[in-house]
Amino acid sequence: MDQPASKKPPPKHRRKRLSGIERSTAPGAIPGTLEPLAGAHAPVVTIVSYGPGGSTEHKFTTVEALGKLRGLKPVLWIDVSGLADATLIAELGKLFGLHALALEDVINVHQRPKVEEYKGHMFIVARMVHSEERTETEQFSCFLGRNFLLTFQERHGDCFGPVRERIRSARGRVCKLGPDYLCYALIDAMIDGYFPVLERYGEVLERLEDQVVESPRSSNVRDLHELKRELLLLRRAVWPHREMVNALIREENPVIEAQTRVYLRDCYDHTIQLMDIVETYREIASGLVDVHISSVSARLNEIMKVLTIIATIFIPLGFIASLYGMNFDTAASPWNMPELKWYLGYPFVLAVMGVIAGGLLWYFWRKGWLGGDRLGPR
Amino acid sequence: MDQPASKKPPPKHRRKRLSGIERSTAPGAIPGTLEPLAGAHAPVVTIVSYGPGGSTEHKFTTVEALGKLRGLKPVLWIDVSGLADATLIAELGKLFGLHALALEDVINVHQRPKVEEYKGHMFIVARMVHSEERTETEQFSCFLGRNFLLTFQERHGDCFGPVRERIRSARGRVCKLGPDYLCYALIDAMIDGYFPVLERYGEVLERLEDQVVESPRSSNVRDLHELKRELLLLRRAVWPHREMVNALIREENPVIEAQTRVYLRDCYDHTIQLMDIVETYREIASGLVDVHISSVSARLNEIMKVLTIIATIFIPLGFIASLYGMNFDTAASPWNMPELKWYLGYPFVLAVMGVIAGGLLWYFWRKGWLGGDRLGPR
Amino acid sequence: MDQPASKKPPPKHRRKRLSGIERSTAPGAIPGTLEPLAGAHAPVVTIVSYGPGGSTEHKFTTVEALGKLRGLKPVLWIDVSGLADATLIAELGKLFGLHALALEDVINVHQRPKVEEYKGHMFIVARMVHSEERTETEQFSCFLGRNFLLTFQERHGDCFGPVRERIRSARGRVCKLGPDYLCYALIDAMIDGYFPVLERYGEVLERLEDQVVESPRSSNVRDLHELKRELLLLRRAVWPHREMVNALIREENPVIEAQTRVYLRDCYDHTIQLMDIVETYREIASGLVDVHISSVSARLNEIMKVLTIIATIFIPLGFIASLYGMNFDTAASPWNMPELKWYLGYPFVLAVMGVIAGGLLWYFWRKGWLGGDRLGPR
Amino acid sequence: MDQPASKKPPPKHRRKRLSGIERSTAPGAIPGTLEPLAGAHAPVVTIVSYGPGGSTEHKFTTVEALGKLRGLKPVLWIDVSGLADATLIAELGKLFGLHALALEDVINVHQRPKVEEYKGHMFIVARMVHSEERTETEQFSCFLGRNFLLTFQERHGDCFGPVRERIRSARGRVCKLGPDYLCYALIDAMIDGYFPVLERYGEVLERLEDQVVESPRSSNVRDLHELKRELLLLRRAVWPHREMVNALIREENPVIEAQTRVYLRDCYDHTIQLMDIVETYREIASGLVDVHISSVSARLNEIMKVLTIIATIFIPLGFIASLYGMNFDTAASPWNMPELKWYLGYPFVLAVMGVIAGGLLWYFWRKGWLGGDRLGPR
Amino acid sequence: MDQPASKKPPPKHRRKRLSGIERSTAPGAIPGTLEPLAGAHAPVVTIVSYGPGGSTEHKFTTVEALGKLRGLKPVLWIDVSGLADATLIAELGKLFGLHALALEDVINVHQRPKVEEYKGHMFIVARMVHSEERTETEQFSCFLGRNFLLTFQERHGDCFGPVRERIRSARGRVCKLGPDYLCYALIDAMIDGYFPVLERYGEVLERLEDQVVESPRSSNVRDLHELKRELLLLRRAVWPHREMVNALIREENPVIEAQTRVYLRDCYDHTIQLMDIVETYREIASGLVDVHISSVSARLNEIMKVLTIIATIFIPLGFIASLYGMNFDTAASPWNMPELKWYLGYPFVLAVMGVIAGGLLWYFWRKGWLGGDRLGPR
Repeated sequence: MDQPASKKPPPKHRRKRLSGIERSTAPGAIPGTLEPLAGAHAPVVTIVSYGPGGSTEHKFTTVEALGKLRGLKPVLWIDVSGLADATLIAELGKLFGLHALALEDVINVHQRPKVEEYKGHMFIVARMVHSEERTETEQFSCFLGRNFLLTFQERHGDCFGPVRERIRSARGRVCKLGPDYLCYALIDAMIDGYFPVLERYGEVLERLEDQVVESPRSSNVRDLHELKRELLLLRRAVWPHREMVNALIREENPVIEAQTRVYLRDCYDHTIQLMDIVETYREIASGLVDVHISSVSARLNEIMKVLTIIATIFIPLGFIASLYGMNFDTAASPWNMPELKWYLGYPFVLAVMGVIAGGLLWYFWRKGWLGGDRLGPR
Repeated sequence: MDQPASKKPPPKHRRKRLSGIERSTAPGAIPGTLEPLAGAHAPVVTIVSYGPGGSTEHKFTTVEALGKLRGLKPVLWIDVSGLADATLIAELGKLFGLHALALEDVINVHQRPKVEEYKGHMFIVARMVHSEERTETEQFSCFLGRNFLLTFQERHGDCFGPVRERIRSARGRVCKLGPDYLCYALIDAMIDGYFPVLERYGEVLERLEDQVVESPRSSNVRDLHELKRELLLLRRAVWPHREMVNALIREENPVIEAQTRVYLRDCYDHTIQLMDIVETYREIASGLVDVHISSVSARLNEIMKVLTIIATIFIPLGFIASLYGMNFDTAASPWNMPELKWYLGYPFVLAVMGVIAGGLLWYFWRKGWLGGDRLGPR
Repeated sequence: MDQPASKKPPPKHRRKRLSGIERSTAPGAIPGTLEPLAGAHAPVVTIVSYGPGGSTEHKFTTVEALGKLRGLKPVLWIDVSGLADATLIAELGKLFGLHALALEDVINVHQRPKVEEYKGHMFIVARMVHSEERTETEQFSCFLGRNFLLTFQERHGDCFGPVRERIRSARGRVCKLGPDYLCYALIDAMIDGYFPVLERYGEVLERLEDQVVESPRSSNVRDLHELKRELLLLRRAVWPHREMVNALIREENPVIEAQTRVYLRDCYDHTIQLMDIVETYREIASGLVDVHISSVSARLNEIMKVLTIIATIFIPLGFIASLYGMNFDTAASPWNMPELKWYLGYPFVLAVMGVIAGGLLWYFWRKGWLGGDRLGPR
Repeated sequence: MDQPASKKPPPKHRRKRLSGIERSTAPGAIPGTLEPLAGAHAPVVTIVSYGPGGSTEHKFTTVEALGKLRGLKPVLWIDVSGLADATLIAELGKLFGLHALALEDVINVHQRPKVEEYKGHMFIVARMVHSEERTETEQFSCFLGRNFLLTFQERHGDCFGPVRERIRSARGRVCKLGPDYLCYALIDAMIDGYFPVLERYGEVLERLEDQVVESPRSSNVRDLHELKRELLLLRRAVWPHREMVNALIREENPVIEAQTRVYLRDCYDHTIQLMDIVETYREIASGLVDVHISSVSARLNEIMKVLTIIATIFIPLGFIASLYGMNFDTAASPWNMPELKWYLGYPFVLAVMGVIAGGLLWYFWRKGWLGGDRLGPR
Repeated sequence: MDQPASKKPPPKHRRKRLSGIERSTAPGAIPGTLEPLAGAHAPVVTIVSYGPGGSTEHKFTTVEALGKLRGLKPVLWIDVSGLADATLIAELGKLFGLHALALEDVINVHQRPKVEEYKGHMFIVARMVHSEERTETEQFSCFLGRNFLLTFQERHGDCFGPVRERIRSARGRVCKLGPDYLCYALIDAMIDGYFPVLERYGEVLERLEDQVVESPRSSNVRDLHELKRELLLLRRAVWPHREMVNALIREENPVIEAQTRVYLRDCYDHTIQLMDIVETYREIASGLVDVHISSVSARLNEIMKVLTIIATIFIPLGFIASLYGMNFDTAASPWNMPELKWYLGYPFVLAVMGVIAGGLLWYFWRKGWLGGDRLGPR
């Protein structure tokens, strides 16, 4: 295979999209070791404790100080955005008694969304979409215990603003309920974040559909391919959330209370809706490729019809004209092109040409080649 | 990606069809809050109470007055058409003890059909088709309790006329049985409402089939694409009803009595039939695209055959004619085109041309290019 | 969408085939009411009672008289062919204690094959094929009780002749066993009836295969589409029988005895074989469409090769000939076409033409365009 | 549909392959009757009894004599090759207490592989491949009891030679174990028999792959279609073996001992491997059809490029040449083709032609049409 | 079928890849016999025993000596690389009490990955990828007991270096845990070994994607076919690992401890990720074939447009030119081409030609044929 891409390197963002799914640990690394990935962001720790009585935001100093906050209020939410500090994560793991493998999954940010049960806590992985970029997702991992929720994000910036606002202003149900409800609220916010992305894809698809149906361009197929590929990657990101939410609903773990399961059911419906939309878009896009191919064929038909009509009419006429352009010596024999000397030779030949052209036009008209849309005879 | 649609906005109804599936709440909204959607209709409340003894229609005044009607007769049916009044829905929710999430689903009218069990009542979502429009569906949600049925519709106008008439005239089984039978009757009416829609698609498909098979047009592929897309959306609307009805049949809830389950089984069969028809139509439509592409190719073959026959016959003849149109000086040398001076030069050349034309025609005839339908030799 | 079918109405039988799958009751009809369909046949009632001792055929007078026959012999088989008389069916329903919904399904003859259990009897729906028509099926419904079998057919004429003959002549096992064995024998006869239909499709498919592979015609794609569509409808008719027979085998109903289940297992194998054959035929037919499209493309290649060879050889030659047909005044300048006056000008030009033609032929031969089958070079 | 096959009958072996899957009993035959099929082979009976002590081969005289052999040694293996003698089969059935339906399945040799349990014995059907023919399979049925194995083959000749040899020479485990191990050994031999067949298909596929990729011919599509069809039939033959072996492993029948189940698990793995290979071959073959279609299109492109280059260069040149072949009377007016009389008229025209040809060649070179493989510009 | 490959033998590595999946024992071989395959490598035995206290490497002398090492330390790992010595394997089997069938599977190196339970030990088969070759896999089989792990590899060289290093240096968890953890570590290393292979395929796919989208070549389809086939083979290799790891997690065998199951869950996630990536790559590759076919068609359109524009403009002009090249005798009649003698005859004809050419260009411009990308009118 040759490397034609030597001059034009493949655009960076595409390369990342395909290989962003690979596992990042070197084969043979010891399972359960914590080594931050190259390019990980520096951590920002946010600590909120709240309960029916109100919420307090704490400043992060040391992990030991953190330990004392535990149990003060019904819910302690520690959010770590940026995963560059393996020591911090390891200390948090020790403080809350977390499993080494789960901590490794926190750092190796290419996990599929999943739920894992450990003694006293659950480990949940989800993927968050960035609204500004399209199919790029960021790993969100959290440890849900009886009175704490420990969340890890790959980067700074998230879609949890409204949830934080609700905790701060003590609006909604979130302050009255435990960390399981908070966990649900975050997952719900992440899954809702996929809808605007899909909506944008829907608009792209509609624009392409209008183009392909009304005036196809050769670039449409590439755009459709691009769209299909991104929907494929999006589907792969969305699909395991369904299973993950379902596991949260069904597993008999005391960490999640019955009333939160009702809310998770709602969340589950949303993941199914997401998948439904992605699948529908993919099927429409696939169908559009067929429509495009068929449009291109129809166009070729039309081009060939024009060529055939023109060539078929003029080639015989040209033959007749060049017939009488031959230089046979009319003087040498009465058989040599006597027509050239006829009194009405020229008008007669023109008439013959007119009859041939008319006959061919009538033939094409009967074949339906002169009509616009129709492809068949009569 | 360029925006060619700047001048011609995509037709409004299509845009709606694709993006009508998105979730309507803003990401980050508090789960369980009731904010009516933009464009929701003003509610019209219809109240009927009935039992074996007959039916009474009540005028709606206040929700408190409604509370007193409860229990007077075996069945109290409250129907709210139009979801613009969140207060009314919230008060009804309080009166009947309904879950906040279910009420939110009533208002956010893009739910998939589903069944949810709550203490003392079931929450059912279905989608109703409008006969005048094609794949547009309206959300129907209902709360089914021991002695009441609370139904919510997105808009005024429905397909429940015959059921109302049966209650009014005390015909059929409906007056003798409880609210579960009423609920079944409404679901059955909604599912039956899909059949006329499908019948119309069946007619469109047959017309397209006749066209494609007998005289294909280039517009057919677009029509087929349109049809396939609408069937896709219809399938997505119909599919979850199967699961929903199945859940009603299987779940051990005292709200639904055993004899109603027998009727629901019938309803379940209808949803399977619907899916069967939709799938069959989709497969036929997909097959038609192939037939069309193949027709277009066959047409191109025919066009090229005409061009090839004409060009192949006349190009050699034209060459011979122009050969003798050359102006070599016959006087300068006896080798210079002596044919021009032959006694039978001209007839001889004409004869040669006739032989060549005849030979080529025979060759084409043997190749089968002069026959009509046959694509192959002999 | 325009209506090109205004002059040529679509052939009646095709229209029927597609829309014959729609449900026949008007939406909103009261479930469980009995209104015979338009075009239902007048009923013919045949009554046979038999047991190990022999069989008696009874004349049908009234339903009450029928009631007295019950229990006289181990098996009472009442067959009603033609469903126009709703009163008769209702009375039979009352006599045998049948459910209203089941009776409605008897009359609405577009049910999918299914099994429904009721107290004291089973309700079974199957679809019978007419050997003279191809995919048209007729509904067969039956009620199987402890000592009776009540069968309903849509039309007169069936494939039960051999079973009747066996009862009359007391041959085979049928007289020694109960109504469940009779029911099995009828279902077996119906399922066996699909095999000759499939065999005919197999022959059509083989004929098409020979044509497409040996000498494709443009009509083949339409025939293949027709075949695929009919196999699709056939599959839809056959598929639910599998589930139906399986339900009969597995359901723990005392109406069906263990030894009959052994026979039903055999019947189940046949339904699987049917599905196997239908699926195989469909896959072969789909593959043939590809072969056809590829044949048509190969044909186009061949046509274009002929055109290209002829045009490519003669267009340069024609150019040379017309070059020397130019009328530059050789007298005006020694630079003006001195070749015309050369002694060997004409033979030289002919030789040049021959070399060009030979070179091009050699080029085409090397490209492999002069060989027959090969599409590639060398 | 016309019958183009009137002159050339479809090759016999293909017809047989497609319709060989139909059921052979006439519809309406009494279930459980034994009528040998037309063309059944005369039976050859082989009797071997063996145990840890050694094996004895018995001559077959009568069925009664056979009865006495039962129980003499741990295993009695009776093999009947050829199913023409219904009486013999019926008598064997009576002797061993076999079910009539199973005996019918022995004779009607189009059964799918399956396992059926009866009191005291199991009935197993498998299909054996003939190495000399390709997808033709022969039915093997056997009855496995506590101390006997009764096997029926459609024809003489099988792949059991090595098993027989092991019994005769008391090699391997077979003599120490019961009839269940013998049964396993036979099934294993049959399933192993499919591997060489697949290997041959693999070779055909590779040859086709080399051809299609390196120098496609139009016959390749037909060969691929043939291959795909045979793999389809092979899959249908192999597929139910998986289920059959699985049933043998899982069913709690005392006839099969635990240690034999371990061996059957191995056999099960082989059936899965078979299916894997068949599916892989089918997918590769399907992909090859696409490669072929695309090769043919690329070829057409190349042909059209040659035609277009030649025609596009010479048509304008020819036009210029014929322009100066016009006979306008230069004497009549100074405006009439004064170029003809220019001193450098002819060289000038030739130069113009050269410039045009060069410009067009440069244009084609820039479009990338003069390169070999590249389809696009630059 | 002809053998065009006589001169050019199919490249060896491809043939191997397709037929490398066939079973290697001759049909009819005695199950459970140990005959090394032709070409098996000579065995190299490595023995390590370790525990929390440290690890010892032993030299292999005889199998009896080996027996004495058993139980000395918590874990005894015996690795046999190369399967040519059947006696050695048989003796090891006797020493550890292994089942004959499992030993046969060790030697017949075309097993699918699987888990089999035996009394006191488990038998596990996996497939290891060689990083230097692409889809070639090597069989890894192991017997996992309470205090030993017996591993067999097809060839020397593996990806277990890091695991061995960890044992030697007593790093990580491996020395503190039993043979089940060692077994997990080996499986994990093998599964991680697939990721670099996939990454390379991802790069190939991206390069092809760039080529097809930016400047398609006819060789791309073949490369895509090759890629799809290798992904197909890779999928077949990877797929059963999922099931195998799942079986290890779920089966209630005391040989695998609960804490190891947690690690296996991680391993399971990796197999799912592998499958996800393979499937995504396959779908993208399939989509690319469509993009390529459509590019080729668009290219053909462009070629035909150039031909049609040139031919359609010059053929009529050429006709006019040859019209006035006719030699009608203007002297014989005033009707014979009087234009030739007009004062402005020649300029007039040139003007007519200009008008025709301009009109046709305008027509093509309106059709959108002169624009670059657009395929449709306006």
